[in-house]
Amino acid sequence: MFGEILHQVRMQKPHIHCITNYVTANDCANIVLASGGSPIMAESPEESAEITALCNGLLLNTGVLHPDKLSAMRKSGKTANQLHHPVILDPVGAGASRFRTDSVNILLQEIHFDVIRANLSEIKALFCGEKVSHGVDAVSSDSITEKNLPEIISLIQSIAGKLNTVIAVTGQTDIIADKNRAFCIKNGCSMMKTVTGTGCQLSALTAVFITANPDNMTEAAAAAACVMGVCGEIALEHLKPYEGNASFRNRIIDAVCRLDAETLEQKANYQIF
Amino acid sequence: MFGEILHQVRMQKPHIHCITNYVTANDCANIVLASGGSPIMAESPEESAEITALCNGLLLNTGVLHPDKLSAMRKSGKTANQLHHPVILDPVGAGASRFRTDSVNILLQEIHFDVIRANLSEIKALFCGEKVSHGVDAVSSDSITEKNLPEIISLIQSIAGKLNTVIAVTGQTDIIADKNRAFCIKNGCSMMKTVTGTGCQLSALTAVFITANPDNMTEAAAAAACVMGVCGEIALEHLKPYEGNASFRNRIIDAVCRLDAETLEQKANYQIF
Amino acid sequence: MFGEILHQVRMQKPHIHCITNYVTANDCANIVLASGGSPIMAESPEESAEITALCNGLLLNTGVLHPDKLSAMRKSGKTANQLHHPVILDPVGAGASRFRTDSVNILLQEIHFDVIRANLSEIKALFCGEKVSHGVDAVSSDSITEKNLPEIISLIQSIAGKLNTVIAVTGQTDIIADKNRAFCIKNGCSMMKTVTGTGCQLSALTAVFITANPDNMTEAAAAAACVMGVCGEIALEHLKPYEGNASFRNRIIDAVCRLDAETLEQKANYQIF
Repeated sequence: MFGEILHQVRMQKPHIHCITNYVTANDCANIVLASGGSPIMAESPEESAEITALCNGLLLNTGVLHPDKLSAMRKSGKTANQLHHPVILDPVGAGASRFRTDSVNILLQEIHFDVIRANLSEIKALFCGEKVSHGVDAVSSDSITEKNLPEIISLIQSIAGKLNTVIAVTGQTDIIADKNRAFCIKNGCSMMKTVTGTGCQLSALTAVFITANPDNMTEAAAAAACVMGVCGEIALEHLKPYEGNASFRNRIIDAVCRLDAETLEQKANYQIF
Repeated sequence: MFGEILHQVRMQKPHIHCITNYVTANDCANIVLASGGSPIMAESPEESAEITALCNGLLLNTGVLHPDKLSAMRKSGKTANQLHHPVILDPVGAGASRFRTDSVNILLQEIHFDVIRANLSEIKALFCGEKVSHGVDAVSSDSITEKNLPEIISLIQSIAGKLNTVIAVTGQTDIIADKNRAFCIKNGCSMMKTVTGTGCQLSALTAVFITANPDNMTEAAAAAACVMGVCGEIALEHLKPYEGNASFRNRIIDAVCRLDAETLEQKANYQIF
Repeated sequence: MFGEILHQVRMQKPHIHCITNYVTANDCANIVLASGGSPIMAESPEESAEITALCNGLLLNTGVLHPDKLSAMRKSGKTANQLHHPVILDPVGAGASRFRTDSVNILLQEIHFDVIRANLSEIKALFCGEKVSHGVDAVSSDSITEKNLPEIISLIQSIAGKLNTVIAVTGQTDIIADKNRAFCIKNGCSMMKTVTGTGCQLSALTAVFITANPDNMTEAAAAAACVMGVCGEIALEHLKPYEGNASFRNRIIDAVCRLDAETLEQKANYQIF
């Protein structure tokens, strides 16, 4: 299944308008290219809606947010909704400041998102009113384990149902769920946490995947998470003993660039609930 | 010829003020350093003219443009013109939005550019009134082929003549032309399109090359395009089967860092018309 | 001594709020992660103080400065001082423009910095009223040599005493001094100058080190400089003949990621005055 979704990405080469943050923008652009898509970054309110209209899909990532960028996101999100372009939200830092949380809530009120990709702390801050104590990474009490998996799936599906969206929560196990189904992806490795912006990169990749597979967004978002995990594993295989997180970062993107449908199907490790 | 131009770059180590975009700024800075130059990024209108005056050359790249950055570009461009510093324009995204096109036109009216480096879609949007349909990359109908080469050279030389500038249009074949001469560079490889910002990087490299060779700007811009292509070829030679666009990106910059005049002369593949 | 300081970093995994520049932000984030810390970038005045309060330490880097970012820095710096979080300043470009110099002086007046890390040209521009002639890098007359070492140590200690801070001046020899002691670090290699942002990266690393070792900030800042130098040496050992500054950049961060206390102690090359 994921192989066919990857195949569609390679065939359709979707153009993705990315309104994202400067810390990880270069990696996001390169992972979009690695997957077969084409990234366009533009974040001035003066032009964002026009750029959105030129593209096939839209990514809104709230890292290093400022008010002008928020304005651009609102314009682009509405345009994408009008044009029925797939739209994904990565609410980086939601819960970490009032400005960030309020901004994400404005986006959620004005724009319909096809996918929301976040860590569990961000999801809880946005939809369960919990306070965040530790910046942009999920706190350890928000890890997804075998034990709390059923409970978290249930929480996510309930939110997904209310918003009529797909929610992708990533951690040691990734959960990608709509109101009816949940994919639990077990690919990946712990070293991915030592690279800045693997979450941002996955959101960019997800934007490509859902845009190339608009009729199967849940599977497409799950496939993107699986690709990221599989490519983390491949990257680790090629890592030399003296190489660390910087080389690992490059090798993940390299692996996305080289990945074929057969390898993906073979290495994919997931369950559907 | 190109060897001597590279030699001048290595000797003179020009300081380049870069007003550019955050997606590719790190790669641009590293390729400037790889070539022997020294990059300085500053884009506040409060200081841009002063920074320009401290440097030897100026690069204006309109990627991820916003109004404040445009103001900085106008001040820096005028300062550079007054001081007779070489100035290069990379009109990223011209034609993709009204704001981007209008902004580039303001720059073209107020500032004399020694070199304009762009893809063919951007050139046509700016100087032939054509509409862009696909974001920041050249559309495939704007590829440069053997068949349309004479026609495109003629178009570029006519624009170069009107603006009294050098125009560098890059694609599978690169054309670098002033009103009298055109260099057609055939170095490079298709994988370069899978790396974000190779165009931005070439513009930064061109800024270094023309600044170190102010009396031979056409040759210098052609040499920069040739260096980029040759280094793409060298990078490909060193790429392992499991490496993709992220490693390739590093290896291009690595190759610029290691390139000597002799290798450049030997691998250069171009014609002059 | 430096081994124990590194050990504390690995154990405590401090969260660092970085207000920095887009050219080197990705590398700064990855070197913080490589050391064991966790970076958070946020620079909107709307949220900067809240983000600072969530973290354990604060880095202010004035590269690509603009007025909004300066406002965020002022708010975050005051908050960090109130909360007794370690704060480090990297006055990138001080002396290169009036805006940059004035902005840094505002920060120095309003905020107490535990460490100021800069090159000698920036220190002289800020505290000796000297004019800068060459952008963001130290001019060659500001190199630290065997001959001028005693004089420079004396200058730095006098400034450190007046400001009650630690000053870390980096160059071929790094000097890290408070009013009582000076560490002279001789690790590193000349190729580090060919990578953009090694100074920014060292400042980010120093932020992690002083935050994890708040009772020994001078040693911690010296240890960070030593780690950077040692990792430059290790990176060079692993560099292949065809690799240049881009691969070298990755290998420095890789080496930080892999470094253990024993190797650090063994390779550390420094004197205390």
